[in-house]
Amino acid sequence: MTGATLFTNVHLATVAGDLGDCNGELRDGAVRVEGGRIAWIGPRAKAPGKDAATVDCGGHWMTPGLIDCHTHIVHAGNRSDEFEARLNGATYEDIARAGGGIMATVRATRAANETELLRQSLPRIACLLAEGVTTIEIKSGYGLDLATEAKMLRVARRAGVILPVGVVTTFLGAHALAPEFAGRPDDYIDAVCTQMLPRLAAQNLVDAVDAFCEHIGFSNAQTERVFACARALGLPVKLHAEQLSDQGGAQLVARYGGLSADHLEHVSEAGIRAMAGAGTVAVLLPGAWYFLRDTRVPPVALLRALGVPMAVATDCNPGSSPLMSILLAMNMACTLWRLTPREALAGCTVNAARALGRQDKIGTLEVGKRADFALWEIDRPADLAYAMGFNPCRGVVNGGVPREPVVSWRP
Amino acid sequence: MTGATLFTNVHLATVAGDLGDCNGELRDGAVRVEGGRIAWIGPRAKAPGKDAATVDCGGHWMTPGLIDCHTHIVHAGNRSDEFEARLNGATYEDIARAGGGIMATVRATRAANETELLRQSLPRIACLLAEGVTTIEIKSGYGLDLATEAKMLRVARRAGVILPVGVVTTFLGAHALAPEFAGRPDDYIDAVCTQMLPRLAAQNLVDAVDAFCEHIGFSNAQTERVFACARALGLPVKLHAEQLSDQGGAQLVARYGGLSADHLEHVSEAGIRAMAGAGTVAVLLPGAWYFLRDTRVPPVALLRALGVPMAVATDCNPGSSPLMSILLAMNMACTLWRLTPREALAGCTVNAARALGRQDKIGTLEVGKRADFALWEIDRPADLAYAMGFNPCRGVVNGGVPREPVVSWRP
Ligand SMILES: [Zn+2]
Ligand SMILES: [Zn+2]
Repeated sequence: MTGATLFTNVHLATVAGDLGDCNGELRDGAVRVEGGRIAWIGPRAKAPGKDAATVDCGGHWMTPGLIDCHTHIVHAGNRSDEFEARLNGATYEDIARAGGGIMATVRATRAANETELLRQSLPRIACLLAEGVTTIEIKSGYGLDLATEAKMLRVARRAGVILPVGVVTTFLGAHALAPEFAGRPDDYIDAVCTQMLPRLAAQNLVDAVDAFCEHIGFSNAQTERVFACARALGLPVKLHAEQLSDQGGAQLVARYGGLSADHLEHVSEAGIRAMAGAGTVAVLLPGAWYFLRDTRVPPVALLRALGVPMAVATDCNPGSSPLMSILLAMNMACTLWRLTPREALAGCTVNAARALGRQDKIGTLEVGKRADFALWEIDRPADLAYAMGFNPCRGVVNGGVPREPVVSWRP
Repeated sequence: MTGATLFTNVHLATVAGDLGDCNGELRDGAVRVEGGRIAWIGPRAKAPGKDAATVDCGGHWMTPGLIDCHTHIVHAGNRSDEFEARLNGATYEDIARAGGGIMATVRATRAANETELLRQSLPRIACLLAEGVTTIEIKSGYGLDLATEAKMLRVARRAGVILPVGVVTTFLGAHALAPEFAGRPDDYIDAVCTQMLPRLAAQNLVDAVDAFCEHIGFSNAQTERVFACARALGLPVKLHAEQLSDQGGAQLVARYGGLSADHLEHVSEAGIRAMAGAGTVAVLLPGAWYFLRDTRVPPVALLRALGVPMAVATDCNPGSSPLMSILLAMNMACTLWRLTPREALAGCTVNAARALGRQDKIGTLEVGKRADFALWEIDRPADLAYAMGFNPCRGVVNGGVPREPVVSWRP
């Protein structure tokens, strides 16, 4: 034995190729894994596997392990009380007056100790893992102070140790104005740039830096200060951009060579052209659009025409997208925004990897990539985006190690 | 021991009361079960349980076992190919020319033998069971000939033997025109009324009778012939009514004392008043509305105002609602159509029971009802409708017998 493993009796959806071109389907293929990476991939009949242990994949389909590249999944509490209150007639003002909205989640997340925050977050993450997710991005942003932002990011890192999932962390200190800085947003951005980000980065808690650039969030200029600080620390940036209005955030994040601009319902053609030029991924978040009953659809056709890679993510968060199914995000992207099933799959694999700056390591079934796979009992890859609330995942492979799709989440 | 069981350390959402009033919540309650039925329910401190075996429910919430009262879940094949083709630009005409649409499912269902049809259907049903469903309605209607309609209904009955779920069958021969009767819909209705329904009823395969009353389905007069035949056999009726246009189906089914009128996007006030007078339940099916990108919302406020009980169901079917999550149907009913979370829960319990004519046996936590329970790790009942793609079910009880929520579906 060489320590090699041959995954065989499997149909392959490699999702290899650029910009959502995922025609790379191969029936009755095989994948050879050595040292946790793909060493060979091709038709089963040609597989170099005499020396390898064999894993029979049962005739299922294999895709790259799915990647959820935009989540706020680490948080305490939920906001079902506001959901119910709104449906019983309360206005957003009523709810804000009662202490609701994002500040309710900030209070709950600050109040929870690290163990409790982990305990509440793991079931949500495990829910994604059951659907073949092998990499997840997790943002901070419900602390708005150094201690709580650090706590959130530590919990995110620990989740990746406890559960079989790769975790990429994003510092989102500029998510909302901390209540201690009411009326002083520039002072808060100072704190983000000089107190919080450098210290969190020094503790290796930050893989990327994000902000919420919006009329109800931070201005273009304030966002740029955060980006400049990130650049000085050598950290890549991304942005919650043009969700509610066009703030020129797409151009800004592109100017900083950003990994992604996320939401984009109101992005302009100029913004899209800037993203195309910079290779910035458009991360589409249909869960929030659905949950908020938005009507403004992001310009999918123009993104496609101008060659901007499109990713699809859950945006899992308690206020605007309590969505813990990546397959449902794919369905929403197709049903509501008319992505094709292949685009949706590329959006949760190759383009999601790119949105995390990990395209060299994960996101496709190609030689050299990490052996993160999902196995599906489906007739064709389009089934993944078609069905709603049905999970056909029959196995997951993390770095070459097979596991059952349903993992225990209790530490 | 008396053979009694006391379920304790549990919060109760009894959903007891009329027409969606489900204020019956009780924290720290207990339920005593004898002979598979609820013998006592109330505060834990008063529970008459000294002689009973005890089941500790871990502080979770208990609701009645959920009821999916409108499904086409027994069928062969799926239609993800059409889903993908449409997203790649094919028109409905293109797809029909290529043999797609409902006839693709009819061909596949006719071609599958009984074992194969069961094998394909069980995973879908098991998916619902994992979310606390204890009763499911299953329609025929992809056979359109006696042999295949019988096969579908036998598979439905067998599913209820193999899996821990109560199955209520509905004969939907008048779902679409059988290809053998092209151009002769009245002759097909003859066959439905004189050949199919009487024989299927004689084999005890039919609990209720349904039809598709629509300009692309069967006329009001044709539907009435089916209803008259059902009445002659002593079978209750229900109807796919006013989904695409107002055909007066609501009035018709109410006139026959129907259990439910389903879809109802185009129902008139007169139709609603007729339903209210007859006690006919409005079964709301937001999955189809979402998947078809419909824009006409059923008149929820008027249904509510006129006291028509509202149920919510998946409509699980391969063409217009490949939805296998009752919780997601609840979320869609709230998010898209503004039901309250309590109405959504009532829609999948007490009012769903009524839509099946089983309100005396299931659908609430009340003395005398069958001990079908779902246990949920949630903070409050509204969580069930709030989260998307997250399953907090931690246990199910069928007729007093506890089980894990995830059941094996391989026969
Ligand atoms: Zn976000
Ligand atoms: Zn239906």
